[in-house]
Amino acid sequence: MTYGVGLLLKDGFVLAADTRTNAGVDHIATFKKLHTWQVPGKCVFALATSGNLATTQSVVSLITEGTQPEKKKGEAESLFDAKTMFQAARIVGRAVREVKKIDGAAQLQSDENFGANFLFAGQVGSERPRLFEVYSAGNFIEATSDTPYLQIGEHKYGKPILDRVTDMDMRLGSAAKLILISFDSTLRSNLSVGMPIDIIAYTKDSLKFDRQMRIQRDNPYFQMLSGEWSKALRKAFAAIEEFDI
Amino acid sequence: MTYGVGLLLKDGFVLAADTRTNAGVDHIATFKKLHTWQVPGKCVFALATSGNLATTQSVVSLITEGTQPEKKKGEAESLFDAKTMFQAARIVGRAVREVKKIDGAAQLQSDENFGANFLFAGQVGSERPRLFEVYSAGNFIEATSDTPYLQIGEHKYGKPILDRVTDMDMRLGSAAKLILISFDSTLRSNLSVGMPIDIIAYTKDSLKFDRQMRIQRDNPYFQMLSGEWSKALRKAFAAIEEFDI
Repeated sequence: MTYGVGLLLKDGFVLAADTRTNAGVDHIATFKKLHTWQVPGKCVFALATSGNLATTQSVVSLITEGTQPEKKKGEAESLFDAKTMFQAARIVGRAVREVKKIDGAAQLQSDENFGANFLFAGQVGSERPRLFEVYSAGNFIEATSDTPYLQIGEHKYGKPILDRVTDMDMRLGSAAKLILISFDSTLRSNLSVGMPIDIIAYTKDSLKFDRQMRIQRDNPYFQMLSGEWSKALRKAFAAIEEFDI
Repeated sequence: MTYGVGLLLKDGFVLAADTRTNAGVDHIATFKKLHTWQVPGKCVFALATSGNLATTQSVVSLITEGTQPEKKKGEAESLFDAKTMFQAARIVGRAVREVKKIDGAAQLQSDENFGANFLFAGQVGSERPRLFEVYSAGNFIEATSDTPYLQIGEHKYGKPILDRVTDMDMRLGSAAKLILISFDSTLRSNLSVGMPIDIIAYTKDSLKFDRQMRIQRDNPYFQMLSGEWSKALRKAFAAIEEFDI
């Protein structure tokens, strides 16, 4: 499994994914599931993936080939040709369908699950930053001010805090904090989600990715956050009177 | 779906279940999913159910028939004959298997899911109170001091707070508060779990159920708890410094 979450903000967006993949409990590995493509000053795109790793890696490779110089790229479409994020999301959707067309039938025959989901965020030129969730079928939904966050993978443990705190007016650093708390709850309760966490914060209109990092288990901020959050929850719990049943 | 949770304590146990059943989003109803049987001074048993309602209601009916006077009870075994909670849990397991034997094949043919899970708690005589989770196959696991809580149904949203706060030394009123917070998180994030909540708190060696109630949406304590918990979470969130990514 995987946990990925994206938060659309007035000031930009924050996107994060864990790095654990597993096929059964005795086949665990670390794979990057957060990918970016950019032409600084023109457009930026970030993709978080969940589901069948063969599928998601093929989708990422296909998109990456599309962004290569003409002589290398073969048939693949280029994200860099998209005039809007909607067009870019359709390119991702078509890449998913392309992989499904090639591998889907054989996967079905060997009882493999093709299923894959994607969070796709970015900005093209002067259009506002946008955030999408792309499904296995290649169709997608978009985050709006009603629901500015989207999740993929093992999403239930980390949802209650998002439901309570999310606000599009948050600063990027505050949204990153929220996402890391959501990850902390998930990591504690579910073995299929594991550190490190890849995270990217994008500042609206900067048209470049310059705030991204990999958070390892021994990251001092994450350790502080995890400890303080536990302490605060226990304190909040103790402060409420008992139920006199 | 359903949410049910049981917490085993040094002082007894607390068991709770919601009351929503649904077959699709346009077929929602309220059904009691927390049932009790007792001979005051001798033994007490409580059962929370999740899964196929036809299955769980048949299991409850079969167990109830077993506790009736001789001329009414037919073939069913009686919980009241159990000398230990282990024997009682086996009676529940056999009731599940009996229902499966009768209805399982036909349910399978009509593509229905037989699946049902149960939390079973109680005390027999001077034996300590015990808590079990009984599976569709009629086998079961028991809560221990390592993991004193068990959940059935839609368990993920409400698990993080249980993982952080659960402690067998808690007072019953405190455990009831914890369970209601776990329910609050689940109710906010998942439509298939709904109020009212049935809850029972059992005091060790009392050998009677005298602390149980149905918590409606307008219950003043639950409203206070839900509001205070949200406020405390937002305050705790604000108190942690931003992530300087």
